[in-house]
Amino acid sequence: MKKLVLLRHGESTWNKENRFTGWTDVDLTPKGAEEAHNSGRLLREAGFTFDIAYTSVLKRAIRTLWIVLDEMDQMWIPVESSWRLNERHYGALQGLNKLETAVAYGEEQVLIWRRSYDIRPPALTPDDPRYPGCDPRYRNLPKQDIPLTECLQDTVSRFLPYWRESIAPQVKSDKSVLITAHGNSLRALVMYLDNLSEGEIMELNIPTGIPLVYELDDGLKPIRSYYLGDQAKIEQAMQVVANQGKILPNL
Amino acid sequence: MKKLVLLRHGESTWNKENRFTGWTDVDLTPKGAEEAHNSGRLLREAGFTFDIAYTSVLKRAIRTLWIVLDEMDQMWIPVESSWRLNERHYGALQGLNKLETAVAYGEEQVLIWRRSYDIRPPALTPDDPRYPGCDPRYRNLPKQDIPLTECLQDTVSRFLPYWRESIAPQVKSDKSVLITAHGNSLRALVMYLDNLSEGEIMELNIPTGIPLVYELDDGLKPIRSYYLGDQAKIEQAMQVVANQGKILPNL
Repeated sequence: MKKLVLLRHGESTWNKENRFTGWTDVDLTPKGAEEAHNSGRLLREAGFTFDIAYTSVLKRAIRTLWIVLDEMDQMWIPVESSWRLNERHYGALQGLNKLETAVAYGEEQVLIWRRSYDIRPPALTPDDPRYPGCDPRYRNLPKQDIPLTECLQDTVSRFLPYWRESIAPQVKSDKSVLITAHGNSLRALVMYLDNLSEGEIMELNIPTGIPLVYELDDGLKPIRSYYLGDQAKIEQAMQVVANQGKILPNL
Repeated sequence: MKKLVLLRHGESTWNKENRFTGWTDVDLTPKGAEEAHNSGRLLREAGFTFDIAYTSVLKRAIRTLWIVLDEMDQMWIPVESSWRLNERHYGALQGLNKLETAVAYGEEQVLIWRRSYDIRPPALTPDDPRYPGCDPRYRNLPKQDIPLTECLQDTVSRFLPYWRESIAPQVKSDKSVLITAHGNSLRALVMYLDNLSEGEIMELNIPTGIPLVYELDDGLKPIRSYYLGDQAKIEQAMQVVANQGKILPNL
């Protein structure tokens, strides 16, 4: 049986300010760091060990991973980071808070971006300081890979090649794999693994700071998946995420 | 011009207790962490950026690297860790403090191990709980690569293939490279780069927590090398290391 653990980073400074974050490289809040410590403790107490870990190139996911590996006394395992695990890029919404977004685009339009799988928010222009091409971490990417905005479908499209070429071969070769990433890049993986429809994935909210364990067969089909930890707390965390979704989509 | 920065981790818990550490995976002390923060600040203020970093599989070097990358806002760069960058393995001396070592082996014998390039301390036996083969991080190594003890010559021998196959090609292709490691694995590199004799390298002490910058030509011959930071403080740090050497060799 193959094992794979997904972990969504906890609260970031912009989550707290209710801003669209996307590819903006904001840090965890102290609460977000504590969520990561809890995840590490849960994994350690449940006897997990990992052979390799994957994360995005955004520090809220990287720091989550570092804290987890430190808690597990597994700082020495190989870690690979990729922009393909980044959060969904939110285009011109990045940096705006709920009020600014509603004023600029209208409540109804925001609802459409929030509920649709394939409608993109307004795009950045390449001369925008928020354009990822200005950031040294993306300087070696072909220009056509650098997003100006993304719908969830775009996030799925740029995540899947990385899954197929880098992560899946490790899982297949019986390596125990940890992925620390973001609400939407993890949704992309869950959609693929569980073969969910566009409607189903839009309804699914992955709580922060709670390890999601997949047990897979040799063909990487899920045998079962479960959240690790106290089930009452998990229900509560999922409710928090669902309620956040009523105000703002996954950022 | 190619650039390479070497950084020796700062004080660990066993440095503080004056114990032979070697491959024992002890953590930094708060003072050691502060040394790492200072290094990160020095590198940032001097305008350094890195394309890739290398470290050992020991947490005192990994944590040093994490702190430096965090200070530099470069957490996203690729990091590769290898046992070949580990500290010299101290064999059966690992865990002993100065008094225990002198009692067990005699002061004169300790002096010989300290001053010689090619005389090994007593070896571990494979049934010793300190034997690295018991540690999951070394489980995929061929048995002949797992040391029972090392002299500095052995450390040089197992470090150099990693330099040639992994690090040097990155430096040659104009990548800016950071290596955070240990007193003796960094000595191995300095001996090689500066073409030092066995006698010269035994005399050379690399201070902790001070970035050592190499500027290299296309053939990776040093054009110049220098420690980064306040020169008076650097002199002081080198004196501290030299004085430690009078009591105990580099651990």
